[in-house]
Amino acid sequence: MSDLLVSADNISGIKNDLFLQALKGNKVERPPVWMMRQAGRYLPEYMVLKRKYDFFTRVQTPELVCEITLQPVDIIGVDAAILFSDILVIPQAMGLEVQMNEGQGPLLPDPIKTPEDLQRIVVPDVAERLHYVMDAITLTKKTLNNKIPLIGFAGAPFTILCYIVEGKGSKTFDKAKAFCYQHPIAARQLLQMITDTTILYLKAQRTAGADVLQVFDSWSGLLSPADFESWAQPYLLQIQQALQPFCPVILYPKGSWYAMKDLADNGTMAMGVDWCIKPQFARELVGPHVTLQGNLDPAKLLQTTAEIRTDVHNMINAFGAQRYIANLGHGMTPNIPVDHARAFVDAVKEWRG
Amino acid sequence: MSDLLVSADNISGIKNDLFLQALKGNKVERPPVWMMRQAGRYLPEYMVLKRKYDFFTRVQTPELVCEITLQPVDIIGVDAAILFSDILVIPQAMGLEVQMNEGQGPLLPDPIKTPEDLQRIVVPDVAERLHYVMDAITLTKKTLNNKIPLIGFAGAPFTILCYIVEGKGSKTFDKAKAFCYQHPIAARQLLQMITDTTILYLKAQRTAGADVLQVFDSWSGLLSPADFESWAQPYLLQIQQALQPFCPVILYPKGSWYAMKDLADNGTMAMGVDWCIKPQFARELVGPHVTLQGNLDPAKLLQTTAEIRTDVHNMINAFGAQRYIANLGHGMTPNIPVDHARAFVDAVKEWRG
Repeated sequence: MSDLLVSADNISGIKNDLFLQALKGNKVERPPVWMMRQAGRYLPEYMVLKRKYDFFTRVQTPELVCEITLQPVDIIGVDAAILFSDILVIPQAMGLEVQMNEGQGPLLPDPIKTPEDLQRIVVPDVAERLHYVMDAITLTKKTLNNKIPLIGFAGAPFTILCYIVEGKGSKTFDKAKAFCYQHPIAARQLLQMITDTTILYLKAQRTAGADVLQVFDSWSGLLSPADFESWAQPYLLQIQQALQPFCPVILYPKGSWYAMKDLADNGTMAMGVDWCIKPQFARELVGPHVTLQGNLDPAKLLQTTAEIRTDVHNMINAFGAQRYIANLGHGMTPNIPVDHARAFVDAVKEWRG
Repeated sequence: MSDLLVSADNISGIKNDLFLQALKGNKVERPPVWMMRQAGRYLPEYMVLKRKYDFFTRVQTPELVCEITLQPVDIIGVDAAILFSDILVIPQAMGLEVQMNEGQGPLLPDPIKTPEDLQRIVVPDVAERLHYVMDAITLTKKTLNNKIPLIGFAGAPFTILCYIVEGKGSKTFDKAKAFCYQHPIAARQLLQMITDTTILYLKAQRTAGADVLQVFDSWSGLLSPADFESWAQPYLLQIQQALQPFCPVILYPKGSWYAMKDLADNGTMAMGVDWCIKPQFARELVGPHVTLQGNLDPAKLLQTTAEIRTDVHNMINAFGAQRYIANLGHGMTPNIPVDHARAFVDAVKEWRG
């Protein structure tokens, strides 16, 4: 607490607590900034480890998780670290085989196809099955030494159901949606099992030291507004209500702009926003008390650094500097030059209101 | 004009002109209905021809196009036929090789990667390069014998650019977007060439007998509102302005709900709507003078026929029966049972306001 950069009401002990202040809605001089998938394949330092260790070794070895999580903190200078992990550790912990084949995306060779298949999965003992995540958080928090906050995360129940039923990535996740529409009772049972597991998992992440939790509903935008209300929202809100008393929770239902008002009305304190909605309209939907996070199209990082700077400043001016976290609208892609990612972060730091 | 079912102001000579009346905004007893990809792989009758003839034989042989186009008219009883064809005949006519490999989607083995590559393509003589489409329209109109209207179509310029630059299907079309952001002058040149070709193509379709034209911007929803205004809208509006004096034009910028107000303000008379927007909000955005078309999630056709009927009636009640065309929010998938497609059509016909 001796650092002069610490805000007056800093009770976290974290030196740069801009991210936490923006989540609380406290006044900040500039918005905090981090980038979805900031720990990843665009970084040569990550690629060295990727060539050396396979996916599950990287995810399950606390020392590697710690190293990968911290790489972008020094290299591009973000205001928050996000744990290197994967949303599919949950189906794996629930009893399904998950394969990660380089260049082909995830594969669950034996997905849930019928209501009877539910007998093959369980709500696991998270402390036992996912201890490596909690160990990685503890180590990363220690190594971070209170420099910036650490974000933990999980996939949202509908998105996890998509993979559990479809068995692999998909443009439309038709099989997963059909499972909900054709077997609603089993689908709700599955969603509840995922939700229960996720709540245990995120509570354990918090206990291990995560300062903030983000829930990624990457595929909720494939649902109609009515189906989002039915198949995504209730489970997102269960997670929010279980965790928000303990730490800030950011919900990111990608593409589900139509649900933003409802989520805000149900007490969501922070929401991720993709680039397919105007910042002013997003703010209008959620009202003044929600922190918004986003929303540059990652493809825009392939512009020149001067153009990136202009886009970032326009974005901050459109969202406003308060109750706002500068970020992308989706994850970094591998083809983005490191200095372009750094230009994004620097542009936020250079912004003057 | 002797048929008693013809509306009082029917000048088209078409016996069932419900579809044209809804487009004009004339009062109808019930909404007209057709289904995107109604001529396609869910029909056993189509599969017989698919096994016998390869993709380009099916698309380029007027007798086959006519047969495939008319199959759903009798089998599921729609109020409009849509020409069996593919949006990628345009890049092909412009000089690029297009391959259609079963089960793998389209492939352009030598896509446009640099501004210099534009020298490899032309605005073609459409009457010569795409005569088979016009021959198919003439034959289909003759065979339809004025029973119902025939819809012609094309891909929108941004969507065609996506394939021309990316070379294949993609979840994000990052390369195509990056081409726009990194080479804006060349990208505009390419979009204008596609637009010029498409206008010639659609005018020829109209001359050959198409009663209505639909423009599919299948990937415009990957653009931010600002980028849609920059890379999609100007070219959509050029097409609309060139064709709408000659026949009704339906624009379908999938996912670009944020652009609906602007398109309506720019004179768009009819718009397709996907399922990710509430009908009432879609109507609010476009005002009272635009005909809306959509929007059931095709995955909902895997429910029971009783559930489909309920969904269809709810959909019509939400959109209202006037200035509305019942349809899906996206194309039929191959796994939909024929009697479920028929249930969709029947439910519209059974609806009573």
